[in-house]
Amino acid sequence: MAKFRINILGCGSATPTPRHNPSSQVIDFRDNLFMIDCGEGAQSMMRRMKLKFARLNHIFISHMHGDHCLGLPGLLSTLALHERTGCVTIHLPADGLEIMRSITDYFCRESPFEIKFNPITGTGGTIFESDSLTVEAFPLYHRVPCYGYIFREKPKPRHLIGDMVRYHQIPLSALHGIKEGNDYITPDGTVIPNCRLTTPADPAMSYAYCSDTTFNPAVAKAVNGVDTIYHEATYDSSFESKAHQRGHSTAAQAATIAAEAHANRLIIGHYSKRYSDVEILLREARDIFPNVIAADEGLQIDLI
Amino acid sequence: MAKFRINILGCGSATPTPRHNPSSQVIDFRDNLFMIDCGEGAQSMMRRMKLKFARLNHIFISHMHGDHCLGLPGLLSTLALHERTGCVTIHLPADGLEIMRSITDYFCRESPFEIKFNPITGTGGTIFESDSLTVEAFPLYHRVPCYGYIFREKPKPRHLIGDMVRYHQIPLSALHGIKEGNDYITPDGTVIPNCRLTTPADPAMSYAYCSDTTFNPAVAKAVNGVDTIYHEATYDSSFESKAHQRGHSTAAQAATIAAEAHANRLIIGHYSKRYSDVEILLREARDIFPNVIAADEGLQIDLI
Repeated sequence: MAKFRINILGCGSATPTPRHNPSSQVIDFRDNLFMIDCGEGAQSMMRRMKLKFARLNHIFISHMHGDHCLGLPGLLSTLALHERTGCVTIHLPADGLEIMRSITDYFCRESPFEIKFNPITGTGGTIFESDSLTVEAFPLYHRVPCYGYIFREKPKPRHLIGDMVRYHQIPLSALHGIKEGNDYITPDGTVIPNCRLTTPADPAMSYAYCSDTTFNPAVAKAVNGVDTIYHEATYDSSFESKAHQRGHSTAAQAATIAAEAHANRLIIGHYSKRYSDVEILLREARDIFPNVIAADEGLQIDLI
Repeated sequence: MAKFRINILGCGSATPTPRHNPSSQVIDFRDNLFMIDCGEGAQSMMRRMKLKFARLNHIFISHMHGDHCLGLPGLLSTLALHERTGCVTIHLPADGLEIMRSITDYFCRESPFEIKFNPITGTGGTIFESDSLTVEAFPLYHRVPCYGYIFREKPKPRHLIGDMVRYHQIPLSALHGIKEGNDYITPDGTVIPNCRLTTPADPAMSYAYCSDTTFNPAVAKAVNGVDTIYHEATYDSSFESKAHQRGHSTAAQAATIAAEAHANRLIIGHYSKRYSDVEILLREARDIFPNVIAADEGLQIDLI
């Protein structure tokens, strides 16, 4: 079981090339799949990467440009053919609600599962929460309303030290509280401090998706402290003014965001079709922030 | 220059598989491209097959199931990014007009070229005509309104016999008529019969696209005499009742249509995802009609 894995389905920009698909990723969080963006071809990549349609319940669309959402009707049609039941929720900027609802009403009218829409407005906020995960939407700065998404694992329990639990004969009913950080009070009133009963919890991981966006320090602020950041790097710095004009970023700007946000790792992607080799983008980013991975179709990155 | 070439971009059925894309073909008729159906991934296949976006002016949609038309918004968006100008006409069953117009209004609103729609109703008829080609729509028998398309090359001129033209000193002005079959009358009134001045024209070729459809003898009647027929063969005969129920055909039924229509050649496709190898479909069809080709992604078939 993947604990927290990023699957890259597509990391090209608006024009698909023989090398790159338009944007799509699937977060595999403890066997629950969350898709971010759904460019054309996303469903085919899901099959190739053996990501199970049945485990996909939430799809997050960053913005309503075709290369980020035009794979959605086909994916939903395929889910219907797989006799998928239950519910799929599509989180998307509110300006896309009407057209996407028209499309799904038309192409998925015989769908055996429910399609719910969660339109995002204003500054976003927490749009999904489970026992172990939250997803927050935050504004990006593109030519149309656009949101980034942060996936945050909730704090994990501390690890019990088995020998100590047995030595103090701690009852089962007290263990949950101790894993949450409580001290243990013995029947005779002695306080056993938590640090003697547990070792620290594994760190809670987090992932931020920032595409498409022009360079904006507000993005660094929004994703501050996130472990791994995916940030679009459509161009190298020689196209900085074009990047700005088109609402995109350079690799150097992506790296600057990662550095300012104190991230551990940066993934770049959304490459312009002009790059048959993304080495130039990688080098440029690494000059500013050392730990950079270049996204590629089929790549899987575990957050551990 | 291709004279009359069928390019197979996708020949799978509703669920894309790692092996097959959903339906799409491009007819290259003397360097003018005509697309029939546009399943997801069609634009990527156009690139891979080096079919030039700039030469595509007409797209024919058979019916409004996602696997036949959901590549269209992405393709049109890409055409826009290529600063394509002029006009692209989308011929489609009338029931698809409203949704497809909504989609293109939304996703192609900054398009530098005009998108025209030609809604097809009733029994179809001739929907496109140029100096050298006609395209006719005719009804197919599926679960929703569905049309097949026949591409007919117009009759070609007869070949002049150069020696005879010189011998009779025939003026340039008379040659066009002679190539059309006229006799030549010399200045002294002697009639030189056309058969002494020309050899027969090359045959005018024709191609019919029949997908999706249940088996129906009316289809054979509609495509009677066509040189090459593409007919869906979603299943083998052991699934005949399922084929009927789903509005599809078996390979044997596709071959029966080709035989009854006196075709020269049959191309089968629209394979169910259950077939990783289509040999069983080919064998079944060839038992009834010998000249069968199995469609495959990237295949090019010249009509000569």
